[in-house]
Amino acid sequence: MTNRSEITRLPERGSRHRETINQILDAAYLAHVGLCVDGQPFVIPMLFGRREDSLLLHGSSASRLLRDLGTGMPACVTVTLVDGLVLARSAFHHSMNYRSVVAFGNARVIEPPRAKIEALRTISEHMMPGRWADARGPNKRELSETTVLEMPIAEASAKARRGPPADDDSDLGWPVWAGVLPLATAALAPIPDPTLADGVAVPDYIDRYAAARPAAA
Amino acid sequence: MTNRSEITRLPERGSRHRETINQILDAAYLAHVGLCVDGQPFVIPMLFGRREDSLLLHGSSASRLLRDLGTGMPACVTVTLVDGLVLARSAFHHSMNYRSVVAFGNARVIEPPRAKIEALRTISEHMMPGRWADARGPNKRELSETTVLEMPIAEASAKARRGPPADDDSDLGWPVWAGVLPLATAALAPIPDPTLADGVAVPDYIDRYAAARPAAA
Repeated sequence: MTNRSEITRLPERGSRHRETINQILDAAYLAHVGLCVDGQPFVIPMLFGRREDSLLLHGSSASRLLRDLGTGMPACVTVTLVDGLVLARSAFHHSMNYRSVVAFGNARVIEPPRAKIEALRTISEHMMPGRWADARGPNKRELSETTVLEMPIAEASAKARRGPPADDDSDLGWPVWAGVLPLATAALAPIPDPTLADGVAVPDYIDRYAAARPAAA
Repeated sequence: MTNRSEITRLPERGSRHRETINQILDAAYLAHVGLCVDGQPFVIPMLFGRREDSLLLHGSSASRLLRDLGTGMPACVTVTLVDGLVLARSAFHHSMNYRSVVAFGNARVIEPPRAKIEALRTISEHMMPGRWADARGPNKRELSETTVLEMPIAEASAKARRGPPADDDSDLGWPVWAGVLPLATAALAPIPDPTLADGVAVPDYIDRYAAARPAAA
């Protein structure tokens, strides 16, 4: 994004870099998936999961882009967590605090029903730990209408910025507030489905998820 | 992302579709920018701005990808706002409430210093309205170290999902809570720069920005 970024490249197995990358991936639930069709880039938002060194993606079997991805063409999966706006004295040093991962690889379709269900479980648990056990599992028709992809990470880099603005010394006397406005994802009160029977409690795992992302009352 | 999506295509000038697209773009501050280099997709997170039917991007002049983008190769700029997790009875109908825009075009470098500064102002005001007037404007060296791009939107589509889960009727008796967990971006208390002089107040526009994104105390 700008200067003062920290880049870690080449996630060797078991290295701290790989840990950094996995921590960012595991803290996020949204990925932006890129692919090229005849030189035209497409970038699509998708939920995702991670299993060891692979990213798991899914979507409708009717999706053209998912089919293209499944052929193994080069893919790029980018995950970004925004932690704050950096408000410097100089316009030039304005920035964002963030953590991001850019991962490259070639996806393949997961075909065997059991492996497919397992991958869907991983994606679901990545989004909301604890939910899978409560949900009605996919049936044969639903499985056939869902394409599940695995992209082994061939190469990835993590990039992050944190901390205060990086103003030049000559600007420190500039007469304006400078600092960071931290941003975070907040969960609001759960909204029950209109058809939900009375008295069905919000599960603990949703309360825990929300408690970790507090919002104003 | 999944079923029940609403797609609006072909943003004709002045159409409601174009309004929908602009509303989503203007509510977001983070874009994921895709381009293809020799068939390899790259997806990079960037702050952005909008001026009429163009997206404005900027970054370090040392960035290879920004230089590539500036040659006018096909680009894809995707913006996604997540509004909630959709927790259905069936695993299959789990989803996300979101609004997203996928915009295609070819970027060009903005060279004249005055136009460049004006574009940087637009990007800054997109991130934090009111800040530009307070900040020390870019000098000649900073301008030369910054590449500013304009991408006229050649084609764009908006996609959104909102509302409750879309469970099958046969699942409505499934004995588990179902509904939506709304998510939003929250601003926490501003963190002053460690070098800030005592008594410099947080500007009104930062307070307003934070007040519109309340977080728990």
